[in-house]
Amino acid sequence: MGVKLGILGLGTVGTGTVQLLQDAVGRHPLLQEIEIYRVGVRSPNKSRDVQLQPEVITTDLESIVNDPAVDIVVEVMGGLEPARSLILQAINNGKHVVTANKAAIARFGAEIFTAANQAGVYVMLEAAVGGGIPVIQPLKQALSVNRLHTVTGIVNGTTNYILTRMQTEGSDFGDVLADAQRLGYAEADPTADVDGLDAGDKIAILASLAFDGRINLEDVYCEGIRQVSKTDIAYAEKLGFVIKLLAIAKNQAQDATKLSVRVHPTFVPKTHPLASINGVYNAILVEGEPIGQVMFFGPGAGAGATASAVTSDILSLVAALKSNTTAPNPLLTCRHEEYSQVAPISDLLTRFYARFLTKDQAGVIGQLGTCFGNHGVSIESIVQTGFQGELVEIVVVTHDVREGEFRQALAEIQNLPAIDSIPSILRVL
Amino acid sequence: MGVKLGILGLGTVGTGTVQLLQDAVGRHPLLQEIEIYRVGVRSPNKSRDVQLQPEVITTDLESIVNDPAVDIVVEVMGGLEPARSLILQAINNGKHVVTANKAAIARFGAEIFTAANQAGVYVMLEAAVGGGIPVIQPLKQALSVNRLHTVTGIVNGTTNYILTRMQTEGSDFGDVLADAQRLGYAEADPTADVDGLDAGDKIAILASLAFDGRINLEDVYCEGIRQVSKTDIAYAEKLGFVIKLLAIAKNQAQDATKLSVRVHPTFVPKTHPLASINGVYNAILVEGEPIGQVMFFGPGAGAGATASAVTSDILSLVAALKSNTTAPNPLLTCRHEEYSQVAPISDLLTRFYARFLTKDQAGVIGQLGTCFGNHGVSIESIVQTGFQGELVEIVVVTHDVREGEFRQALAEIQNLPAIDSIPSILRVL
Repeated sequence: MGVKLGILGLGTVGTGTVQLLQDAVGRHPLLQEIEIYRVGVRSPNKSRDVQLQPEVITTDLESIVNDPAVDIVVEVMGGLEPARSLILQAINNGKHVVTANKAAIARFGAEIFTAANQAGVYVMLEAAVGGGIPVIQPLKQALSVNRLHTVTGIVNGTTNYILTRMQTEGSDFGDVLADAQRLGYAEADPTADVDGLDAGDKIAILASLAFDGRINLEDVYCEGIRQVSKTDIAYAEKLGFVIKLLAIAKNQAQDATKLSVRVHPTFVPKTHPLASINGVYNAILVEGEPIGQVMFFGPGAGAGATASAVTSDILSLVAALKSNTTAPNPLLTCRHEEYSQVAPISDLLTRFYARFLTKDQAGVIGQLGTCFGNHGVSIESIVQTGFQGELVEIVVVTHDVREGEFRQALAEIQNLPAIDSIPSILRVL
Repeated sequence: MGVKLGILGLGTVGTGTVQLLQDAVGRHPLLQEIEIYRVGVRSPNKSRDVQLQPEVITTDLESIVNDPAVDIVVEVMGGLEPARSLILQAINNGKHVVTANKAAIARFGAEIFTAANQAGVYVMLEAAVGGGIPVIQPLKQALSVNRLHTVTGIVNGTTNYILTRMQTEGSDFGDVLADAQRLGYAEADPTADVDGLDAGDKIAILASLAFDGRINLEDVYCEGIRQVSKTDIAYAEKLGFVIKLLAIAKNQAQDATKLSVRVHPTFVPKTHPLASINGVYNAILVEGEPIGQVMFFGPGAGAGATASAVTSDILSLVAALKSNTTAPNPLLTCRHEEYSQVAPISDLLTRFYARFLTKDQAGVIGQLGTCFGNHGVSIESIVQTGFQGELVEIVVVTHDVREGEFRQALAEIQNLPAIDSIPSILRVL
């Protein structure tokens, strides 16, 4: 046998990967030259959906990353530690690494890739973003001949599933979330998904590849979907939009020194390629010069899809090992060590949708218009849309505005005696 | 300077590629190590949108493929000859080749890739299918760990543009074609596009990559869109479909020894990912195990998009040259030399939509139903939809049926005295 794998973790993704590799006929012939040499697990006696010889299984994960016989370490255990330490140790021992761990890469990517470049090994992460969709390799390779200016993704399947159901059923967030948890589409603790943190990890990774600079995760603005109501989804529909949790990385202008990197629920025009991505599917739209728009669509999670991505990285490494390179392949290494500057969200130029509940008085629309005008916020439409009990509902859509100025206007509006509350503020793509 | 390119052709794609390479700042840094060493043209004095030193330009294309200084030959001249001969000569001289020439690859791929494998060089063809969309590399690499069973593409922008306009405007094929020609979206001689031949070349290439076997182009069934009428588009709409020219390659069953490879206008359910691909855009949907469905979407043509694909191939080759491989990279070589068996269209299992014009007599629907029944064709619906002058219009949608049996039933139906004509027969996805 040829190339020896040490696999860390035998959960959903690890099991899927082992199943794929053990059933190699009809796939790329190089897969048959791979040996599943060691698999590290926490509980060796747990019943599993794969057959492995007892000597392959170990609970001593360090022994795998330190074993001189192991060529490639496949980290599919997830979590921050010991994943980070094991990856670093594997690198320092001269092993190539495949990881599906977006959380670890988004937080420790700088440390990990610096170590990998020093050791002359590759760290592959196709499975970290977009499940089975090949998007990391196209960004690092084919699309890198372009000057990219925007990456826009639906990169969290759980929230897209929830928003799709809210839209088709007219249901409330809480009800759909509870049902999604029951069906296994959402975790018992849904925080990382519904608060946009998982999408934040992923857009940090995509931004670093698209714009050739490391991203400090704390610079990524993350706003989740807990505040999205069925009322807003219905208004979006009326106005020709759908609401999607978008992860966006943008080079705001050719001469901009700072990127915009953010996650938030967004009004997306129905004609936009991302508007029709529904359910647990993911899609990543990449825009640049001269290519224009390209989009990658597919399953954002699941054992099989993620195993496909993990195995594609293993395949790339096996091919690199087979071709006996004497110098690193510059398309497989990390080629940036600087950090990109990320602008604060208050600098964002965007359109807004805002929904107000006000007392039923004459002149409220005029007061809103004046407040916005005082802060340079140009209004596209301001419409009294109906009543909620005693209160009047007013929906405002702005032209492009600096977010900071819009927020100042809102702060002033909040203090107007006629204003009861501002239940929704959403950005418009 | 590092790697020397010899570019054959300075038309739209060649010019786009030179422009991209001459404006390398802000793109992948490896592009700055490329020298545009020779460019072969037919008319050296023609005015062009790029500046090149006079000594770079030559009309002697053979001198380029024979020049020992040239590392990579970029064939962007199109056409069958001399493109084929020049590519073969470049290969025999040990040069890597990048080509955008789907017609030459679909016809002479066997000869070209056999020569390339013997010479130990790579032939790259990302630009041959899907314009700027990275789809060839994912098929050869990331997706090849799957057992693929279907590739379905909208791979011809001209016909998709025409069908989209017919659909949105309710116009006839002839009128939209004439307008598309006037606007430059269709060629003066539109045969290759509207008769499905260009899409046929492309699906032959995609099928060879997805199913690891060469495709004899004569085995590819090609039916164009000249027969698609606005009446059928309107019926499709009513039934919940759109009509798209699909290029399909399918491994019909796990145990099937023959592929289905074909191009034809198709009823596509509106909920299908390909249904919303409009205008000149292309999309390729790949399905396999365990990944499920992934789709690639983007500009199918145009100088910039195609230049992006050509340059991405150049980048891959430059990286391979830089990494000093001593053995060929198995992900860049062609790994099949056998031909795939392709089933005749009469073996296809598919649903059909057919529209009949009949005399206004009692019992016609019964006669149709009986004829279909005699040939084992199971009907999903048969509806008298209205009148066209004196004649009655009847629309039939079948369940899955072997195409040969359906055609036999049609031949019998055509001889029924009550039948005036069968204006439309379309397959249903």
